[in-house]
Amino acid sequence: MPSFTFRRRLTIEWGHCDPAGIVFNPRFFEFFDASSWLLFEAALGIKAQDLAAVYGVVGIALVDARANFLKPVRFGDNVEIASRVSEFRRSSFDVEHRITVGGVLAVEGGESRVWAVRHKDDPDKISAAPIPPEVIAKFG
Amino acid sequence: MPSFTFRRRLTIEWGHCDPAGIVFNPRFFEFFDASSWLLFEAALGIKAQDLAAVYGVVGIALVDARANFLKPVRFGDNVEIASRVSEFRRSSFDVEHRITVGGVLAVEGGESRVWAVRHKDDPDKISAAPIPPEVIAKFG
Amino acid sequence: MPSFTFRRRLTIEWGHCDPAGIVFNPRFFEFFDASSWLLFEAALGIKAQDLAAVYGVVGIALVDARANFLKPVRFGDNVEIASRVSEFRRSSFDVEHRITVGGVLAVEGGESRVWAVRHKDDPDKISAAPIPPEVIAKFG
Amino acid sequence: MPSFTFRRRLTIEWGHCDPAGIVFNPRFFEFFDASSWLLFEAALGIKAQDLAAVYGVVGIALVDARANFLKPVRFGDNVEIASRVSEFRRSSFDVEHRITVGGVLAVEGGESRVWAVRHKDDPDKISAAPIPPEVIAKFG
Repeated sequence: MPSFTFRRRLTIEWGHCDPAGIVFNPRFFEFFDASSWLLFEAALGIKAQDLAAVYGVVGIALVDARANFLKPVRFGDNVEIASRVSEFRRSSFDVEHRITVGGVLAVEGGESRVWAVRHKDDPDKISAAPIPPEVIAKFG
Repeated sequence: MPSFTFRRRLTIEWGHCDPAGIVFNPRFFEFFDASSWLLFEAALGIKAQDLAAVYGVVGIALVDARANFLKPVRFGDNVEIASRVSEFRRSSFDVEHRITVGGVLAVEGGESRVWAVRHKDDPDKISAAPIPPEVIAKFG
Repeated sequence: MPSFTFRRRLTIEWGHCDPAGIVFNPRFFEFFDASSWLLFEAALGIKAQDLAAVYGVVGIALVDARANFLKPVRFGDNVEIASRVSEFRRSSFDVEHRITVGGVLAVEGGESRVWAVRHKDDPDKISAAPIPPEVIAKFG
Repeated sequence: MPSFTFRRRLTIEWGHCDPAGIVFNPRFFEFFDASSWLLFEAALGIKAQDLAAVYGVVGIALVDARANFLKPVRFGDNVEIASRVSEFRRSSFDVEHRITVGGVLAVEGGESRVWAVRHKDDPDKISAAPIPPEVIAKFG
């Protein structure tokens, strides 16, 4: 089971919040997306913008996203986002994100992504490719 | 089973899309949120901004959101978003969103929401209240 | 002086608004950007996504944006956005946007954009090219 | 002339960028807004969310925003945003933002804001109030 966890802290901005004074839910999916890139940067030791060139992929394409909102998160809250790959499969994987405020879990998120390459017969198409074992090893 | 469905069309904007030229996933959650408000407007026949005053609620608070991305959606695509309540429970309900491009399903979304009122002992707290039968009836 | 004006109506969404219950200012710049694309679509009679192919440009690149916020715009407000090119120069032009609520001017926006092509010696660079007279004529 | 400058660094995210691979312009206005709040936090030594309570204001309401885009900013760029009040007037002030990439100026932004209080006869209305001299002194 992969155990490498990427953590970052973030202070909730005025513009992240809605008229109820709490984070507008799509913002959490922005936080998750950025954290998934940063998780790969940290695990692989390369810049996110170089992932494509180094591994011959288009990217880590999202196929599924989900979140549970357990407690409201407000303007000025300093949150921690902890992200890890919870499972690697042949050509896809799951990322788990946990947002805590003062150590209390506020939002649980999950993403399923594929290791995406351009289709060799049709470069406009994207398909899933096997994840190299050395990539998986770096999350070990 | 509630059958009232709210449909709207939307053309994907340049600013909805990421460097891969496809819709950045949090935008879909923005589309879902707006569609849920519009669904209630259409079913109840009141303006979204009057929902609070008419029914004594704070809103229809999101507790869970999820999406499957089946096909890429691109700049300039004219999409249809069809939204309906798939289930009403005592004080919560599920909304189902289907985004199609040219009749083909591209994104499936779901939200769980609660009928949210201010807690009577602590107005800073929000709690779930029973959904009035006349509200449910309007989705019939 | 170009006189072609593109008008569209938009209802302000919950997620467009901040904790003060009014539109968060960057959203207006999203509205302006989308309206500039739609203005060109309407004037030239082609899809925004085909602009590049038809005219051999990368796009209509933004070099300057500005807005005055005269009156607050709120959740549920139905606004009109009227957009027109206020001036064409050799390779650049100004777009003027006026957002009204119930006929009252709420936000005045302006953009300066260039007719942008890839630099012939370095395709990674963008430079401004003369705007074809037939393009300008369509706004006349 | 106020000289207090607030600086922060930010790495451009995938989701900040458009299909041309550069930052979508409304994102810069999000960066400016967040930096203006942080500038006041740093100068006044209070949390942004406490500004209202401490000074009896609604906030620092935006009346005007503008930006010049000098160089494209891309996914993965680490930028510095330097923000300062360039002028205090009786009840309004100007904030100047400079975004640099590798020390090179990429975006210049400006905002005009008012020291906003609820109108005493109509709490739904916002009006501008004189900025307390002790506030101005902290930017000195």
